[in-house]
Amino acid sequence: MSFIDQLQAVVSQVDGALACSIMGFDGIAVETHQVAHAGDLDLGTACVEFASILTQLKAAAEQLRAGTVSEVSINTDKVTAVMRPVSSEYFLVLALRPDGNFGKGRYALRIAAPKVRAEL
Amino acid sequence: MSFIDQLQAVVSQVDGALACSIMGFDGIAVETHQVAHAGDLDLGTACVEFASILTQLKAAAEQLRAGTVSEVSINTDKVTAVMRPVSSEYFLVLALRPDGNFGKGRYALRIAAPKVRAEL
Repeated sequence: MSFIDQLQAVVSQVDGALACSIMGFDGIAVETHQVAHAGDLDLGTACVEFASILTQLKAAAEQLRAGTVSEVSINTDKVTAVMRPVSSEYFLVLALRPDGNFGKGRYALRIAAPKVRAEL
Repeated sequence: MSFIDQLQAVVSQVDGALACSIMGFDGIAVETHQVAHAGDLDLGTACVEFASILTQLKAAAEQLRAGTVSEVSINTDKVTAVMRPVSSEYFLVLALRPDGNFGKGRYALRIAAPKVRAEL
C-alpha cells in the first residue's frame, strides 16, 4: 500500500478529517492527502510549525526522562491536529475540523503508524 | 472554592491522575495538587517545559490564523499531560498515568477552566 493510499485510508474513516500527512521532523512533507479547505488556515504552514514544536517536545521529554512521545494533539477553535511519531525522523499528522471525530482520528493514526513505519 | 479545592476536585474525579496545576505561561505554578509520584519524572520541571511549548503554540496558532488554542495534550510512555489555557496569562495542566482516563481528564479540565478563570 503506497503512502498516499494509507493517508487516504486514515482520512476516509474519520469524520471531519481535513488532511493527513507524513512529515519529516525537519518540517518537509513526504506525502499529503488533503480533502477539504480549512477556511483561511494554511495547513501546510501549520504542519511545519507543528513539526518544530514536536521536535522540541521530543527533546524535552528525553531530558525530563518522561519517556518517548507517542502522541501530541493541539485543539484550536478552527482546527484539531493529532500527531504521532512513526520513526526518529518522521511523523504522521492528521488535521480535523474542531467538531470532527477526535477519538476516531487518534485511533486511525495509531493503526496507520506501524504500516507507514514498515514502508519507510 | 479555593484554587487548591478546584485542583483537588479535578484530580479526585479522574482515574490515574497524578497532579493538577494552575500555571503561568512564564512557567511559574500558582497552585499545585499532587497525589502521586510519577516514577523518576519530575512533574514540576515537566510543567515548566510544557508552559514554554504552550506559549510557542499560542503564538504559532495566532500567526497561522488557526484561532485560539483551547487544549493541548502530550502523551509519552510515562505520562499524559492535558493543558488548557484559562486566560491570556494562566493555564491548567493535568498529569495522568498513561493508562489513566484521558477522556475524563479532558472533560474535568473543561469544566474546571471557567471556575478557575472566575477567581483569577
